[in-house]
This record gives sequence, C-alpha cells and structure tokens, in this order.
Amino acid sequence: MARYKLTVAYDGTDYCGFQIQPNGLPTIEGELRDALTKLLGQETRVIGASRTDAGVHAYGNVAVFDADTTIPGDRFSYALNTILPPAVKIQKSEEVDARFHPQYDAKQKTYEYHVFISEHQVPTALRYAHHVKDLPDLGAIGDAAGYLIGEHDFTSFCSAKTEKENKVRTIYELQNRIEERGDGRYEWILSVTGNGFLYNMVRILAGTLYFVGIGKIRPEEIPGILAAKDRARAGMTFPPNGLFLVEIQY
Amino acid sequence: MARYKLTVAYDGTDYCGFQIQPNGLPTIEGELRDALTKLLGQETRVIGASRTDAGVHAYGNVAVFDADTTIPGDRFSYALNTILPPAVKIQKSEEVDARFHPQYDAKQKTYEYHVFISEHQVPTALRYAHHVKDLPDLGAIGDAAGYLIGEHDFTSFCSAKTEKENKVRTIYELQNRIEERGDGRYEWILSVTGNGFLYNMVRILAGTLYFVGIGKIRPEEIPGILAAKDRARAGMTFPPNGLFLVEIQY
Repeated sequence: MARYKLTVAYDGTDYCGFQIQPNGLPTIEGELRDALTKLLGQETRVIGASRTDAGVHAYGNVAVFDADTTIPGDRFSYALNTILPPAVKIQKSEEVDARFHPQYDAKQKTYEYHVFISEHQVPTALRYAHHVKDLPDLGAIGDAAGYLIGEHDFTSFCSAKTEKENKVRTIYELQNRIEERGDGRYEWILSVTGNGFLYNMVRILAGTLYFVGIGKIRPEEIPGILAAKDRARAGMTFPPNGLFLVEIQY
Repeated sequence: MARYKLTVAYDGTDYCGFQIQPNGLPTIEGELRDALTKLLGQETRVIGASRTDAGVHAYGNVAVFDADTTIPGDRFSYALNTILPPAVKIQKSEEVDARFHPQYDAKQKTYEYHVFISEHQVPTALRYAHHVKDLPDLGAIGDAAGYLIGEHDFTSFCSAKTEKENKVRTIYELQNRIEERGDGRYEWILSVTGNGFLYNMVRILAGTLYFVGIGKIRPEEIPGILAAKDRARAGMTFPPNGLFLVEIQY
C-alpha cells in the first residue's frame, strides 16, 4: 500500500464544490473517486486539501489516495485524465510518504480573484470573473492591503457560518494588478497567499478591497474592521465564479 | 425608419455560428432577431458583418437593423441586454446612416487565436483556447509572418468549401506573443488584422504558424505554400474554440 498525491485543476462551474455531498450531486471529490475506482478496479476514496465551494475553480488543489498498484506514481495523471471529464484534469501525480496529509501538511495556499471591468457584460468573461463597471484605484487597494498583510484575527472576513474556532490567520502576500483586455475592457486580478483561509475569506477580501478601490471604504478603515471582529463591517462577498485556488505549498 | 448598428460580443460555444440555420438550431443572429422582435413588438431581422462559424467567439461582431422607434440609438444596448441570454451581449449601439452596410463598408477586421500550452489539459482554459503541449518559437513564427503580411492569393489558407471566387486578401498586421499563466502554463496569442478573411483562413493561419513554431514547417516554405494555391500545402485548421473576432473597423 502506498500513498499518491494528485495536483488537480478544475472548472467548478457545474459542480457543487469539492466535497462529496450526501445527495449525490456532482462534486470534484466524486469525480476523483469514480475515476480512481474505475482505474484500480476497487472503491478508492481521496482526501482533499481544500474544500472549495460550488462554482470555485482550481489550477492546483491537492488530493491523496492509498493504493496497492504497479502503476508508477507519475503515470497516474495520464491514466486518470483519460477517464476524468473535461472539467477535471490531473496536472501532476507522484508517490508521497504514507504519513503525508494534504490538509495538515499544507504550509501556504495561493488564491486569485478575477474581476472583469466593462460597461456591458462580456459573455466570454462571465464564466471565470465577476463583472463590474468601475475600474478600482490600485493605490487605495495597495494601502488597504498593507493593513491586512501579517497575522490577524479575520473574524470580520469570514462567513458567520464557519465552524472553525480559531480565526487567526497569516497573510504573507497580497498583490493586485489591472490588465487591459481590449477596447474599454480590463481585468483586475487579486492574488493572495496565506497559511490558511477561513470560509469565504478570499471572496470577502476581494469584495472589501474592490469597495476600497471604488471609494466605498477608506484604506484607513481596515484596522477598525479587523478589530471589530464583525462580518457586517467588511465589504460584500464576491461570487464564486471569479475565484481560483492557484497553488498549495508543502 | 432609421438604421441602427450593434457591436455584439458572444460566447460561441453553444451556438451553430452567427447565421440563422434553416433547421432552427441556436444561432447568434437568431438571438438578436428574437430579442429585437420582443423589444420592438414586431419581427425585426438583422444583417450581420461576419458569419462566424459554430464555436467561434466575438468581442465585436457588428449587425444592423432598421426600425421606426423612439428608443435613442445608444440605449438599445441596455434594453436588448436585459432580454438577451448571458452568452450574447451588446457592447455598443448607435444610429447610423440608412445606407451603412456592415459587410460592404467594413475596412478591416481583427481576429485573435488563443492556444493554451501545458503538459495536461487545464479545464478552465479549454473553452476559449486550443490545447497543445509544446511551446512555439516566436522567432520562427515572426519570420513566417513576414511572408504572409501584404496582398496575397490565400487559396492555400482557406477551406476548399469556400464559395468566394476572388481569394486575394491583404493582411496588414500579424502579431504574436506568449503570456505566462502560472507554473508550466502559457498562452500563445496570435493577432491578425486584414481587409477580409476567407472561410477558415484565420484558423488555418493559426495552425500553420504553430507548425512553424514547433519546426514542422520552415518559415522559408511559406512563399511556396502561398504560390501553390493548394490547401493541402498549409498546416492544419485549428479548432473554432480558440478563435475570437475582436473588432471590425469602418
């Protein structure tokens, strides 16, 4: 019996999130289990690193499974990709130590949030970005980001539905940029790296920093919002379609 | 009665191309006709500038219609977008001269072809780019592009199914670049501007220039391929999902 690590990319649009649901609705975890079970000829379940929400995408979520097989670790990606649907594809596979745990051993995670800016909705941008009309001010967002980097209690930046007791997390990096996408079209990309993220945290960070960018929240208000430990004080939760889990580092 | 010009963006994935089909399958032209007919209360048809193929996308195709209405020209975009499906959205609307014709008055068109490069397919890249494994050499492609710019008979670069007699077209600009998309992922973007394009011409140009980029065709072979006036001499026709009609200039 050996343990194998999968780096998984997916288009979350048509899935009810990563985690298998009791009602049998489509999930990323379910696709991985089904493909492995078909490949190995026996029920094989995975342990995922990040339980991304319905509609959230990934370039590099991580899952592990245990198997007694002659398939070399680095070939699982090719074998599984012939079985998996177009919306879920393995980017890398490798054998790891039997004690490796995708959640507990994660050192840092990087997410990106994409916002598309144009007067009218652009159909080819809707699937992977949240649409807004106004360009944000990167200077103001940079000032606000300065208050968020470091170790803080992020209670104000997580859904009240969260089950986690400890809401202290560390943000190592918070970067943002605007890229031109043609005549009157722009994309604002927020990239955030931290040691872990609470429920909806990146989507609330994106909504709050965008509000800062359009003048609805002043950068100097961020320390007070953090200190209040009150979800109602931060900005809106941006929708899942703009969110990408980019990478998990171990 | 006045004439109105619409600049139309769409996601072509689920459409059988721009032009209305006799079998009633979904088309962009059909969506525009249905939305205008609903808005204006009477059957209103459009004349399109470019009959893009099934699966091809657009930021700026152009269509006109005639109507006797009190709606100001620049408000049609907002009114139609409340009726149109998410995959088709008007970017701009304006009243134009009654003699304006979207096909005959077009001076130049710009297309982009997107290719995503990665070892394994990346699900969120599949809808709007063709997937390949090998990075092309931009130097070789630049050399080949030099032979294609200008006025040429493009018989070798159009589908044998084309109905057009005259296959002489002028390419004004042919640019290409590679953008990084994260760990081991790249996008090759080909941009081409010309006075008009034959059936499948941009997709054959993309396929041929990519073949040049990976060494399957040498740049110096391009003049011979053009002179042969033989479709079999050029590279493959790349699939429709990577193609975007970016802009039509009048």
